[in-house]
Amino acid sequence: MAKFLTNREENYSQWYNDLVIKADLAENSAVRGCMVIKPYGYAIWEKIQAELDRLFKETGHVNAYFPLFIPKSFFSKEAAHVEGFAKECAVVTHYRLKNDENGKGIVVDPAAKLEEELIIRPTSETIIWNSYKNWIQSYRDLPILINQWANVVRWEMRTRLFLRTAEFLWQEGHTAHATRQEAMEETERMINVYASFAENSMALPVIKGYKSENERFAGALDTFAIEALMQDGKALQAGTSHFLGQNFAKAFDVQFTDKTGKLDYVWATSWGVSTRLMGAIIMGHADNNGLILPPKLAPIQVVIIPIYRNEEQLSEISVKAEKIKKEFLALGISVKYDDRDNNKPGWKFADYELKGVPVRLALGPRDIENGTVEVARRDTLAKETVSIEGIAGHVKKLLDDIQENIYRRAFEFRNENTFRIDKWDDFVSVLENQGGFIMAHWDGTAETEEKIKELTKATIRCIPFDSPEEEGKCIYTGKPSKRRVLFARSY
Amino acid sequence: MAKFLTNREENYSQWYNDLVIKADLAENSAVRGCMVIKPYGYAIWEKIQAELDRLFKETGHVNAYFPLFIPKSFFSKEAAHVEGFAKECAVVTHYRLKNDENGKGIVVDPAAKLEEELIIRPTSETIIWNSYKNWIQSYRDLPILINQWANVVRWEMRTRLFLRTAEFLWQEGHTAHATRQEAMEETERMINVYASFAENSMALPVIKGYKSENERFAGALDTFAIEALMQDGKALQAGTSHFLGQNFAKAFDVQFTDKTGKLDYVWATSWGVSTRLMGAIIMGHADNNGLILPPKLAPIQVVIIPIYRNEEQLSEISVKAEKIKKEFLALGISVKYDDRDNNKPGWKFADYELKGVPVRLALGPRDIENGTVEVARRDTLAKETVSIEGIAGHVKKLLDDIQENIYRRAFEFRNENTFRIDKWDDFVSVLENQGGFIMAHWDGTAETEEKIKELTKATIRCIPFDSPEEEGKCIYTGKPSKRRVLFARSY
Repeated sequence: MAKFLTNREENYSQWYNDLVIKADLAENSAVRGCMVIKPYGYAIWEKIQAELDRLFKETGHVNAYFPLFIPKSFFSKEAAHVEGFAKECAVVTHYRLKNDENGKGIVVDPAAKLEEELIIRPTSETIIWNSYKNWIQSYRDLPILINQWANVVRWEMRTRLFLRTAEFLWQEGHTAHATRQEAMEETERMINVYASFAENSMALPVIKGYKSENERFAGALDTFAIEALMQDGKALQAGTSHFLGQNFAKAFDVQFTDKTGKLDYVWATSWGVSTRLMGAIIMGHADNNGLILPPKLAPIQVVIIPIYRNEEQLSEISVKAEKIKKEFLALGISVKYDDRDNNKPGWKFADYELKGVPVRLALGPRDIENGTVEVARRDTLAKETVSIEGIAGHVKKLLDDIQENIYRRAFEFRNENTFRIDKWDDFVSVLENQGGFIMAHWDGTAETEEKIKELTKATIRCIPFDSPEEEGKCIYTGKPSKRRVLFARSY
Repeated sequence: MAKFLTNREENYSQWYNDLVIKADLAENSAVRGCMVIKPYGYAIWEKIQAELDRLFKETGHVNAYFPLFIPKSFFSKEAAHVEGFAKECAVVTHYRLKNDENGKGIVVDPAAKLEEELIIRPTSETIIWNSYKNWIQSYRDLPILINQWANVVRWEMRTRLFLRTAEFLWQEGHTAHATRQEAMEETERMINVYASFAENSMALPVIKGYKSENERFAGALDTFAIEALMQDGKALQAGTSHFLGQNFAKAFDVQFTDKTGKLDYVWATSWGVSTRLMGAIIMGHADNNGLILPPKLAPIQVVIIPIYRNEEQLSEISVKAEKIKKEFLALGISVKYDDRDNNKPGWKFADYELKGVPVRLALGPRDIENGTVEVARRDTLAKETVSIEGIAGHVKKLLDDIQENIYRRAFEFRNENTFRIDKWDDFVSVLENQGGFIMAHWDGTAETEEKIKELTKATIRCIPFDSPEEEGKCIYTGKPSKRRVLFARSY
């Protein structure tokens, strides 16, 4: 095989990196911690964007765009926010370069120092609420339901392609409401949108829940998250939705007149997902042969490969292939006919497996004779020879099957790797030996959470919405607890 | 009228600013020179993006994403490029803030100084060609046809909403080719894509041509541009496509093995349009009542406004309006039914005129009785009462009419304001008194071009592709010239 992957069971982390590089999704750039998203990877991101954007608009949101730069002083206005975000960030201090007087290229012009430094947005609450201040006077101006697609920068020390990069692409919703209840409903609505996107489009089951105080967004009163389980037994936080209360309205003095004529601060939410979702798709489904893309997010859903010995055979096959291609397009299936002559069919098979194309058709001279075509599905690697008559309808069903099958597989994997644990030794041993989701009791204190993290590297991923009330004892301190929470090591 | 505009004839510049603000397209932010693009403005930009993206993909391009940051040293690698771009730019020098020891908020941490400063991309040739270096070995790796949608920053001193802002949104195509001819064909292809987009979607006639050496992109061997005439007689450069020769390949050492096994440098193009197009749409069509949006780019193509005295009338009208709305949606027409009760119909009429919605329907009790509806078109402000039967088909045709009509109007305006001038005094007087496009002879030297700019503020907008050979004398020096070039003052 042309592009060999490290075996997932031998070195999971290397397998992941290999896959991202060799499937041509992304690569590291010359700038520390910043990635280049290559066309194939970006095409998947475009599919993610299109579907999320549709869901946001369906739920009444509109897009807008706010500045990349945030004045330093804005961060200091919300106390918790500054602690969480204003530390590891890119700071613009000058606005001009000049030729070096000693002829050594170009240097920063010391005369062009900014009066106030500008921070590259790590998230946009502050600059957005500073704008909302001018947009909101009365309850008639509410709600504001805005989303922004943008790049953000957090100066991470240890970076990994898609999972944690200094610059990443994301969307951030920022909404403003007249009442606490409306804002809380919005916070819930958006975590539900994320969950259904993850399950329906990404084919990844997720657990919805509250973050503990330690893990909340800096400035939020409540953070909801969706958590997915990766194949190495680690959790990946795939999306968050924050109930910000009146914190940012108070920090930026955003008040409105309600229906009774009374002045009050505006209620806020924010919510986001990022290119990190690419990491979740990769690690949720891929195998040692490469990516397995959910059909709903695959840029190429079907590839057709001709098998031929001479030009005459090729041209016969091509006629047939182009006909099939049209049938696929008519059903809204994206298809590529790969008749490039620079690689053998076997190389192409392996390459499209690596790239996770859900369905592969192979067409040879015998198929032309018999009116058949070989159909291979990427998820199970199973092949079958079927009639070329009605092939588009057949493949359409197959794509649905694959979407369902990889969801089911991920769901079963998660079930098999979710453990109800009541003893500390078991807790430690599961984390050390196999990983997975652990449902365990916790005494509700930040100190215990910290201590558990220190001892096991596991954190509370969330307090699941559907975790039932149940008497129990904290897995670490033995103190009383009323419900289990979700522990895991995480990305 | 609720939102009063400055009269265009009295103060064009103020009229423009008023319009951008009052039609809710954009506003200035707290960060010098950076704008907030508001939802209505952003919705137009989304329409622009969608259509351009379709055209790029139709011509074989794919999207990708490269880092926001460019190491300072990258700029020095291409001599002309550094002169043009590395001067007025945002420079990141530090990657951390910390709490001030004296308790005065947060300050830049001097310990977190970057070894090499990072520039916020003003354009991405350097970082992209540094990546292409690793992607290209053989002619089989070519062509690379990549586009990027991104934000860029140029530290402009005098900024104006959409027309010139420190941060702006744009797309930048960066292609790599095996031969000079292929790269030149690509450069031409893309200026043609831009021209047809401007004419078909924006309804703005443009002149395609070469830039003079003075006005070329820094690092290009040739720059093609499209130039549109605004209503105040100034030109607006609406898009550029650059033939970069082998300059960037040489600067970043990008060589490939051609079919004969010989090593050669790769040929390059780049091309871009930006949120500046918003300015062109505004200034190309709007009047003293507000925006006039081309139907193909209008986020709302039709608004339906109910005229009623009581709840009973409203509910009858609403039933009808919802029915019409469905008929519109079935024909792919975007429509809004505005039954908000907080403003009078007259206020709404004025507001949708301000926002440039192409077609307005008004539905009153008498219309319900008679089976009619009042249709108003934004371009001519003409009204007619027509049968409600078949209204969707009628409006669909009307939208096409409006698209054509505003194009024709802009085309006629341009014809009336394009002058063939042979005498210096006439040249000066036309520029001083009325503006417009001037086709005049030029001796081909940069010095003359500079001098004319100094004396009249007019520059050579382009040397039109279709400017015929013709013996003549330079408008300023009287030296011999072989073809006329296009002069104008410009944005």
